[in-house]
Amino acid sequence: MISNDRCPFKVGQSTSGKLDAITDVAGVSVGHYTIDEQGIQTGVTVVRAHPGSHYLYKVPAGVTVINGFGKSVGLLQLAELGVLETPIALTNTFSVSAVAQAQIQQAIASHPEIGRAWPTVNPLVFECNDGYLNDIQVMRVEPKHYHQALAQTSALFEQGAVGAGRGMSCFGLKGGIGSASRLVLVAGSTYTVGALVLSNFGKLQNLSWLGQPLGQTLSQRVQVPQPPSPEKGSIIMLLATDAPLDARQLRRLSVRAGVGLARTGSFFGHGSGDIALAFSTAYTIPALVHEPMPSPTLLHEQQLDGLFEAAADAIEQSIMSSLWCAQSVSGRDGHQRQALRAVHDFASGGQ
Amino acid sequence: MISNDRCPFKVGQSTSGKLDAITDVAGVSVGHYTIDEQGIQTGVTVVRAHPGSHYLYKVPAGVTVINGFGKSVGLLQLAELGVLETPIALTNTFSVSAVAQAQIQQAIASHPEIGRAWPTVNPLVFECNDGYLNDIQVMRVEPKHYHQALAQTSALFEQGAVGAGRGMSCFGLKGGIGSASRLVLVAGSTYTVGALVLSNFGKLQNLSWLGQPLGQTLSQRVQVPQPPSPEKGSIIMLLATDAPLDARQLRRLSVRAGVGLARTGSFFGHGSGDIALAFSTAYTIPALVHEPMPSPTLLHEQQLDGLFEAAADAIEQSIMSSLWCAQSVSGRDGHQRQALRAVHDFASGGQ
Amino acid sequence: MISNDRCPFKVGQSTSGKLDAITDVAGVSVGHYTIDEQGIQTGVTVVRAHPGSHYLYKVPAGVTVINGFGKSVGLLQLAELGVLETPIALTNTFSVSAVAQAQIQQAIASHPEIGRAWPTVNPLVFECNDGYLNDIQVMRVEPKHYHQALAQTSALFEQGAVGAGRGMSCFGLKGGIGSASRLVLVAGSTYTVGALVLSNFGKLQNLSWLGQPLGQTLSQRVQVPQPPSPEKGSIIMLLATDAPLDARQLRRLSVRAGVGLARTGSFFGHGSGDIALAFSTAYTIPALVHEPMPSPTLLHEQQLDGLFEAAADAIEQSIMSSLWCAQSVSGRDGHQRQALRAVHDFASGGQ
Amino acid sequence: MISNDRCPFKVGQSTSGKLDAITDVAGVSVGHYTIDEQGIQTGVTVVRAHPGSHYLYKVPAGVTVINGFGKSVGLLQLAELGVLETPIALTNTFSVSAVAQAQIQQAIASHPEIGRAWPTVNPLVFECNDGYLNDIQVMRVEPKHYHQALAQTSALFEQGAVGAGRGMSCFGLKGGIGSASRLVLVAGSTYTVGALVLSNFGKLQNLSWLGQPLGQTLSQRVQVPQPPSPEKGSIIMLLATDAPLDARQLRRLSVRAGVGLARTGSFFGHGSGDIALAFSTAYTIPALVHEPMPSPTLLHEQQLDGLFEAAADAIEQSIMSSLWCAQSVSGRDGHQRQALRAVHDFASGGQ
Repeated sequence: MISNDRCPFKVGQSTSGKLDAITDVAGVSVGHYTIDEQGIQTGVTVVRAHPGSHYLYKVPAGVTVINGFGKSVGLLQLAELGVLETPIALTNTFSVSAVAQAQIQQAIASHPEIGRAWPTVNPLVFECNDGYLNDIQVMRVEPKHYHQALAQTSALFEQGAVGAGRGMSCFGLKGGIGSASRLVLVAGSTYTVGALVLSNFGKLQNLSWLGQPLGQTLSQRVQVPQPPSPEKGSIIMLLATDAPLDARQLRRLSVRAGVGLARTGSFFGHGSGDIALAFSTAYTIPALVHEPMPSPTLLHEQQLDGLFEAAADAIEQSIMSSLWCAQSVSGRDGHQRQALRAVHDFASGGQ
Repeated sequence: MISNDRCPFKVGQSTSGKLDAITDVAGVSVGHYTIDEQGIQTGVTVVRAHPGSHYLYKVPAGVTVINGFGKSVGLLQLAELGVLETPIALTNTFSVSAVAQAQIQQAIASHPEIGRAWPTVNPLVFECNDGYLNDIQVMRVEPKHYHQALAQTSALFEQGAVGAGRGMSCFGLKGGIGSASRLVLVAGSTYTVGALVLSNFGKLQNLSWLGQPLGQTLSQRVQVPQPPSPEKGSIIMLLATDAPLDARQLRRLSVRAGVGLARTGSFFGHGSGDIALAFSTAYTIPALVHEPMPSPTLLHEQQLDGLFEAAADAIEQSIMSSLWCAQSVSGRDGHQRQALRAVHDFASGGQ
Repeated sequence: MISNDRCPFKVGQSTSGKLDAITDVAGVSVGHYTIDEQGIQTGVTVVRAHPGSHYLYKVPAGVTVINGFGKSVGLLQLAELGVLETPIALTNTFSVSAVAQAQIQQAIASHPEIGRAWPTVNPLVFECNDGYLNDIQVMRVEPKHYHQALAQTSALFEQGAVGAGRGMSCFGLKGGIGSASRLVLVAGSTYTVGALVLSNFGKLQNLSWLGQPLGQTLSQRVQVPQPPSPEKGSIIMLLATDAPLDARQLRRLSVRAGVGLARTGSFFGHGSGDIALAFSTAYTIPALVHEPMPSPTLLHEQQLDGLFEAAADAIEQSIMSSLWCAQSVSGRDGHQRQALRAVHDFASGGQ
Repeated sequence: MISNDRCPFKVGQSTSGKLDAITDVAGVSVGHYTIDEQGIQTGVTVVRAHPGSHYLYKVPAGVTVINGFGKSVGLLQLAELGVLETPIALTNTFSVSAVAQAQIQQAIASHPEIGRAWPTVNPLVFECNDGYLNDIQVMRVEPKHYHQALAQTSALFEQGAVGAGRGMSCFGLKGGIGSASRLVLVAGSTYTVGALVLSNFGKLQNLSWLGQPLGQTLSQRVQVPQPPSPEKGSIIMLLATDAPLDARQLRRLSVRAGVGLARTGSFFGHGSGDIALAFSTAYTIPALVHEPMPSPTLLHEQQLDGLFEAAADAIEQSIMSSLWCAQSVSGRDGHQRQALRAVHDFASGGQ
């Protein structure tokens, strides 16, 4: 059963979608595979843009690399062609290869022409380093775990210490998967901007909660062990929308993820792979040249501000949600990350 | 006489330099030329990296375009070669050409070989659109105004509604020039990160003051006229440091300006030219091939986080300072922008 | 009267348009203003994408900076928004400001709302350094020369040592303006790819003529004075097409200009500003948000190869044409550049 | 025994190094693992920048993506940090994950602190699609094959249909691994520019051999089967130099690889992943922050032209060498690629 415990604190003035999650964008679904085996705390999360073949019907997408200390794969071709060819996968740094391999297998299984009569497929796997809680050298994630996460994709999904988020740390506390959505009225039409993050960054003293220096308060009474490595983490920020945008406009949308990230207290640290991707479900581009191309009527550039503001808000909300929903986790070598709600009593204002 | 009225609110925990201004970086100086003629409210601001010839002794620099809705010139070559060749100029959108022309004239006057025996010079002029207060169609700025601003460059300089900042608006209030600095200890050495902004962006309700939603408070009792144009503004953010960094590292430093900007309430609006440039004064690169090249010992990449955090803080502080220092200004067609301190009594907490 | 002397040597196997010029793309027109005053040998060339207001009806465009040693203006916003807002202007390095100023004036004259009720306009001016023949320090080009070139725009236009090409040098010989076109059959429709270059690059010994090392032959018997400056030049390469492409695809098209350039003997020298821009006339994007947005059916990515090959061929042909059409010119300080046909008798094979 | 059969045709006027190979750059070594099993024709090639730990002592590097239709991994972090962290690996498209995994294993085996006390490692694997000759769906390459190629690295190495080049096609003929080098005199010092390519692109009729349209001649008498897929291939172009350049300058050097590629007849096709990487062996950057940073005296920007021209020449020569050295290969489903020398008698001029 999927928990419906959600962060009651709200970023911004605008309305959320029904689920306040990325899956408020029609057709988008999310699935997890979580590995919880003592010193192994990791997993895979998959985000689908639509229920069909992502290879045959590609959605437009754009990406922003805020800080490129990262090992994600698939961005080279995405930047050139402006489309997704697979569902989006999230995992830990050393499991990228296993998951990319799984994406290739899955695409071939569906379309045996790939790599023969048809072009190859471009895997798209994002990662953060969960090495504080998870023994990443073990490389426990296998291709089948991607397939299992993919099979679980649904509009309803868990947040917090699940899937790829299982071993992640955020502001020295337990981070992981968070999601949110916002509705935007543009010229009489209501569009949805959904966000999903894999949060794994930040120093406790920098945590800002709706503008309040919560991290400073907490760091006076909570002992947060820092990893010995100067690599402090990363965040992957996904944005989905049903607004008709092209790859160039989606790249612009993805830039605004950095606003939400900065508001929570990140200063885009050197060792943090901070990457944002935005895709639209408003139309698809066929893989096969003989199928008809779409004729989308894109939004006018002057109509984007509402979407930009929603993207910033939804990302900030998603990061908060990743902290709110995460439970405390113990991992390798006795390492622990405490849940935000285990160290702070929001009801009493932290007293 | 230069005013020394400064914003008493302090961003972050770290120490500021003596002046809490970009000119705390040794050798950096700033000068203004202000035009205050009823419907014409504009000017020029110049930032020098060192007292010598910027053409003969180029400083390393990197740039980030957060949102490229802008008409700044000189970034093409800066991105390729990683150096400044002139002082940095700031002005209004339609005065870029006059100022660029002045930079060429000034370089030729100093070095008659330019464009003959020597390569040409790359003007570097940033702009924001001050068209709400200033009648930019008049194109009142002339090349001589750049020369006059250049002649005024000094370690001490005014902030607020001066120079290029004369006609700028920020969060619906009076914006303009702001500056700040932070000291950073890296491996036993203290480095300075200085910032200077030309602020001209934002909607009042979004103004965040040290994390507090000041704009929401103010927008309930202050009437702020919005320009009819959807082009809401821009911000130019300059960072100077004496830390030994190369162009690649300086680009990384400039990326962190976006953190400070986001914290004040910007969501990187569509119509906003949001651009950041960072330069180092630690060494210079000679124009003439027969002069000896420097052999700088750069900071290790893992030593950059303190500088990154300082850059974010100094930019946020500079934006606050641009609001704090600006006086109310009336301009074309009866348009007015009120000073922040004219609409909010900080002493009484706004009551 | 426009000369119709054209280079009889043909690049590639595909068919040219009727004029073998960029103006074979319907609606595109070109005009020059040439300054020929002893030591002043320079000018302005203007390329219109269509006969209407470029501000009100923007064409999609993409740009590639092969080597960014250049002072062109307008590329920042073009990369962000993917559209032209003015006709494209070409001139010498130190006249960019005068021409940019003229573009702003022209836009305001047509649309007094610009910079008031409407956003500002983004000038787009490309340049090469004609300082060997032209005394660029004089800055002889005035805004009115842009207006005059604009008034001359037509489907028929001169090539060679005219307009912005008046003072340019190419492979140590006389360069300047060259143009060509190719027809491409895509899925039953014929599209045109037109090219126009401003050529000002290269060392004589590197000149390759349809793959033949003509420069090596010539350099054994032709004395070519080299400028004292190590800045050897630049090339601006424009591509126009009526194929329905968006800004991302047009950037991809512009990348292929480098192929044509390399084939003629360039190695993309350090001091050369090598820049390519491509635009499509297939649809326009309205400036005013209340006007209807287009719904273009773009070409499928797999249909682009014919256009890519045509772009490479048309650029190579344009460079050859700039050399073939140019007459010998004498300029400042007794400097001279000889026409290719003055130093090589193509009829006799160079004997 | 390594064959020393080399292409007797020489690009350009400059001198080659002793081996006319990338290994003329001191410290650079190359190794292959070749899989030749009927329908499986593929392999792995490894290029080391120096004999030591690439993780502990990183060499500066820059990269250019000419056309991003490709699945190479590692470029994200390389662009941000400007260094290599592993030897460079080449393989087929669907074996990237296996090889990346091997690179991680190898780094951990050498440095067990990776992913624990130290940051993770960034795998760097380039690929081309050899699916015409090789059944890539089988994914025959295993991590051990990388280790075996690494163990074989040496200054002497085979070219042609070996290692990653085993199954590659070039201009419809047999392509694969090619290498070359050039010596460049800069201000009294001689530097080496070495190149190595994995060639897998092009249509026969476009093949240009030292400027001659050899492909047109050949296509009149040689039947070249085209793959059913519109994805025509890719090329990976590596440049090594002992000249002291930083990452920004190395990116500039890598741009010139496109010149050599264009000269051979490529027009940078849509489906071709055309990527160039350049690295310098002149100094290394320590992974550990307490080790001393280098103080390199970089070349002046005006001294780069000789290196740029050498890069273009060495890449063209490498592509020719990949064709010259390759033997005919038969692969899956009876597919065959003929050696260039099997279809053309250079001695008799092709008669």
